[in-house]
Amino acid sequence: MNVLAIYGSSRDNGNSEKLASYLLKGINHTPVHLREMKIKPITDQRHDSNGFQQVEDDFNELIEAFLKADAVVFVTPLYWYGMSGAMKDFFDRWSQALRDERFSFKEKAKDKKAYVIIAGGDSPKIKALPLIQQFQYIFDFVGMKLEGYVIGEANAPGDIEKDTKAISEAAVMNDWLKHNNR
Amino acid sequence: MNVLAIYGSSRDNGNSEKLASYLLKGINHTPVHLREMKIKPITDQRHDSNGFQQVEDDFNELIEAFLKADAVVFVTPLYWYGMSGAMKDFFDRWSQALRDERFSFKEKAKDKKAYVIIAGGDSPKIKALPLIQQFQYIFDFVGMKLEGYVIGEANAPGDIEKDTKAISEAAVMNDWLKHNNR
Amino acid sequence: MNVLAIYGSSRDNGNSEKLASYLLKGINHTPVHLREMKIKPITDQRHDSNGFQQVEDDFNELIEAFLKADAVVFVTPLYWYGMSGAMKDFFDRWSQALRDERFSFKEKAKDKKAYVIIAGGDSPKIKALPLIQQFQYIFDFVGMKLEGYVIGEANAPGDIEKDTKAISEAAVMNDWLKHNNR
Amino acid sequence: MNVLAIYGSSRDNGNSEKLASYLLKGINHTPVHLREMKIKPITDQRHDSNGFQQVEDDFNELIEAFLKADAVVFVTPLYWYGMSGAMKDFFDRWSQALRDERFSFKEKAKDKKAYVIIAGGDSPKIKALPLIQQFQYIFDFVGMKLEGYVIGEANAPGDIEKDTKAISEAAVMNDWLKHNNR
Repeated sequence: MNVLAIYGSSRDNGNSEKLASYLLKGINHTPVHLREMKIKPITDQRHDSNGFQQVEDDFNELIEAFLKADAVVFVTPLYWYGMSGAMKDFFDRWSQALRDERFSFKEKAKDKKAYVIIAGGDSPKIKALPLIQQFQYIFDFVGMKLEGYVIGEANAPGDIEKDTKAISEAAVMNDWLKHNNR
Repeated sequence: MNVLAIYGSSRDNGNSEKLASYLLKGINHTPVHLREMKIKPITDQRHDSNGFQQVEDDFNELIEAFLKADAVVFVTPLYWYGMSGAMKDFFDRWSQALRDERFSFKEKAKDKKAYVIIAGGDSPKIKALPLIQQFQYIFDFVGMKLEGYVIGEANAPGDIEKDTKAISEAAVMNDWLKHNNR
Repeated sequence: MNVLAIYGSSRDNGNSEKLASYLLKGINHTPVHLREMKIKPITDQRHDSNGFQQVEDDFNELIEAFLKADAVVFVTPLYWYGMSGAMKDFFDRWSQALRDERFSFKEKAKDKKAYVIIAGGDSPKIKALPLIQQFQYIFDFVGMKLEGYVIGEANAPGDIEKDTKAISEAAVMNDWLKHNNR
Repeated sequence: MNVLAIYGSSRDNGNSEKLASYLLKGINHTPVHLREMKIKPITDQRHDSNGFQQVEDDFNELIEAFLKADAVVFVTPLYWYGMSGAMKDFFDRWSQALRDERFSFKEKAKDKKAYVIIAGGDSPKIKALPLIQQFQYIFDFVGMKLEGYVIGEANAPGDIEKDTKAISEAAVMNDWLKHNNR
């Protein structure tokens, strides 16, 4: 199974990344850090007569890796009760990829498995629920399956290790990913 | 009253902007289009010993306008069931502004009035509800008051004119803003 | 068009009922007040070998009226951030009706139009959003279409008259119902 | 520590109850099954000149047990994407208890710890999120602390045993309850 992990944090080795490591332990996967890539915000040209213009950045490369994966792990810190702006820019550009015939986006996204890992502070297990609902709507739109999510509570670097519930949830999902049994 | 309208769309004169025009009709206000500004994504340096480094872009100018306003209207298309990435980048940078002593951010944001205008397709009156909840959490965190929101349904350019319910809601809120009676 | 209005309030002539009157103005409809009916809570016998046992109360009569309607208006005060217990008991019993062959429940519920009217206090326009989402999940399950909803803010009797935004929303939906144009 | 578990299911030994057993394993607690009690729906007399009239049922007894507890575990099947009608009737009656001076309800509810256990079918880990948000609003209103929640997926009797993620979450929370360390 081809597993891709997309990290939305602007920090190296942050809490969301550590939480994801419990999900990904022992699993061969490709990590992509959005902070190391150039993904420009969308320019909405859906209604332009010429459609979307090509953009010079790393988006196409990332979308190709995305479309090849069987399972994709979306890892983001909870920034202002949402995914990071960098990750949002990536999703916004899906509007462009959906209309780019080279990709066959919707056909290839369909039935892909998604996992979501979020870490943040300020009651994230309640206040990240709208973000989970947003991810679900995104995946529904393109026919992906949200296999599971974990919301971890963490503020200072390393805090996530204290959230034994989140770590235990990630460990169970590690088992699902390893055995691909769902 | 000092009214600021922040537009998150990447398109000129789109549906969210038109819907906002019903809220802002006859009201003296400052419009800011994020697509015309340079606001870089956050680099999370909250936990760096030196804190946040200065960023060369238009963020400080915008945050100053924001902090001077009595009421702020946030206008965004519904991109992938969330605010646009450009608007998200603006909020993400609040983490930096909160720690920048020049701004007295939290003191000045407190009790500021917020209005939210969203336009999009695919059942937005249900699927934008998580975004409304996210805005509420954001405003709660800094002590702003969410006075009201309108979610309009629109896909193609100009569609918003058909959503008479949304337009009627915006018109009522126009009256609130004019009379500042809440 | 056959319009049924189901009222979940335990009070006569309360705020949710008044708000609904703006939606129903000039529209021929059948009002049903749950407080005047006997609808027992569900006893979950889905997994009993004999299935559900008949219950002596007014449920069957109500479900028959429900299944005959083209449009159903669900009117409830916001009690503890949800629909009233009386209305919840009605929905819980759908599990029984779904399995009762006399009703052809799912076939008849499909494509029925639903309207939701909620009135309550304590920031209902935010805190009733989970209830809207719950209604949407309910309607999705049986194939009903949620045409629109209004959340009004009101505490003391009569308060709803001050919520001009909610009244204006109900008035627009009155027009939809009258012209059945959606 | 005085632990009370309130079960909202209409079935004996159902999936929500089994899931709760992992949370409560080895913990001295008082179980209360709403299906064995008589709790009438609320009659909203908040605005009556004489206030609420006494109701002849088991509510007062239950509310006394509730107010004595240090931690309360709310256990409910997911019925139509909400708590059971029986449990909703219990919460609705809080409006009465809040105004009954014998109880000092708000003073005693404050800082009480709450745990929520939900089991159901049809993507409960997404579709029960509005219910979690509702519980949070309820607890916020009376100053209780939502310590944690588990949503289990289960349809047929016994199904919950297959949801190893939910069981693992309940086991971690069992440890919290035992050591009262949060």
